[in-house]
Amino acid sequence: MAKAVLTISSKNYGAWALRGWLMAKLAGLEFTEKVIPPDDPAMKAEILLLAPSMRVPALLHDGIEVWDTLAIGEYLHERKPRAGLLPADVKARAHCRAICGEMHSGFSSLRSALPMNIKARFPGFKVWSRAQADIDRILAIWADCFERYGGPFLFGKQPCLADAMYAPVVTRLLSYDVAIDKASAAYCKRIMELPAMKEWVAAAKQEPDEIDELDAEF
Amino acid sequence: MAKAVLTISSKNYGAWALRGWLMAKLAGLEFTEKVIPPDDPAMKAEILLLAPSMRVPALLHDGIEVWDTLAIGEYLHERKPRAGLLPADVKARAHCRAICGEMHSGFSSLRSALPMNIKARFPGFKVWSRAQADIDRILAIWADCFERYGGPFLFGKQPCLADAMYAPVVTRLLSYDVAIDKASAAYCKRIMELPAMKEWVAAAKQEPDEIDELDAEF
Repeated sequence: MAKAVLTISSKNYGAWALRGWLMAKLAGLEFTEKVIPPDDPAMKAEILLLAPSMRVPALLHDGIEVWDTLAIGEYLHERKPRAGLLPADVKARAHCRAICGEMHSGFSSLRSALPMNIKARFPGFKVWSRAQADIDRILAIWADCFERYGGPFLFGKQPCLADAMYAPVVTRLLSYDVAIDKASAAYCKRIMELPAMKEWVAAAKQEPDEIDELDAEF
Repeated sequence: MAKAVLTISSKNYGAWALRGWLMAKLAGLEFTEKVIPPDDPAMKAEILLLAPSMRVPALLHDGIEVWDTLAIGEYLHERKPRAGLLPADVKARAHCRAICGEMHSGFSSLRSALPMNIKARFPGFKVWSRAQADIDRILAIWADCFERYGGPFLFGKQPCLADAMYAPVVTRLLSYDVAIDKASAAYCKRIMELPAMKEWVAAAKQEPDEIDELDAEF
């Protein structure tokens, strides 16, 4: 069987790319990466317009092309049912999909005010009210999960689609020095310590700075 | 088994509510409707901010609470596997989820410039370029589906989750008098003729106008 190919964008700025990539890693999928060049319109669609495009992330596997991060997650769950990408319990699974959906279509203030930028640190960054409301809702979602399923990940002992969906939020909370509760801080640490996450972050730090110029012509 | 309860908002303005409601109808689910009052914050979240909230639509079924439109769709597909909410073929199913995902997280220009308003007609409405780009992409998605699966619905002989996701777009194209190709116009007609759609539209037309005042305090 031919290896799968995952199309991604910047590892430093590409939040949707990170979600899709993490899902593929959690699924145990063997894949190669296809990185779109910085001047590709899809790069701008993802990074500047802060919206998922139909090209990043996109998975080509077994002759099947899947785009959209949630669709990739559901596809991987179907193909790798034993990877535990979705909780085994029907109620927890519905809950998991609900909070994945909230991340997929919401939190636009957070996404625009605190864009993912793994290399950067902004101590004392001022978070304004709309982005703070998004953060408050996210922390409430996490707290609810820890209470229901006992941690250490959102739905129990192993990371699943929801953890991948919220992973870029984790990097933002760290980059922008956002004050959060203890349990959420411990969760953030746990996510950053996942081998796949470490691999992504290391690659983000190596990324040339040419993408930093993207905004100039926007 | 207790009947399911679906929380919805305005039938004239609530595009996310319509999607969730249609999915439940297509699934053959027996449910009662719980309509939130016009001054409920969730009403504004859905209608004015044009974003799905965690409360509309929301499904309570068998003690399980599911919010977010796509999560409701996946839940219904699991519980009613023979209803055909997702295509049987793995490749078509991945494609279906991808275009559902595009609708779920994208097309914000269309959603803000041409809000769903079933009662209204705006002959000669001027569609500006960003909303037109969204419409062009949607028509391309539909054309691709008709070519691949032969119609009359997006994924073949029966309506599925994708048709429910795009149904509010159909009402917008009609309300705002948008020029579209022949195959798309025939598809719109077909969607409007679905018994469930007729039922929703009839109820929307009966809706009192108090919700029309919502914007005043925004």
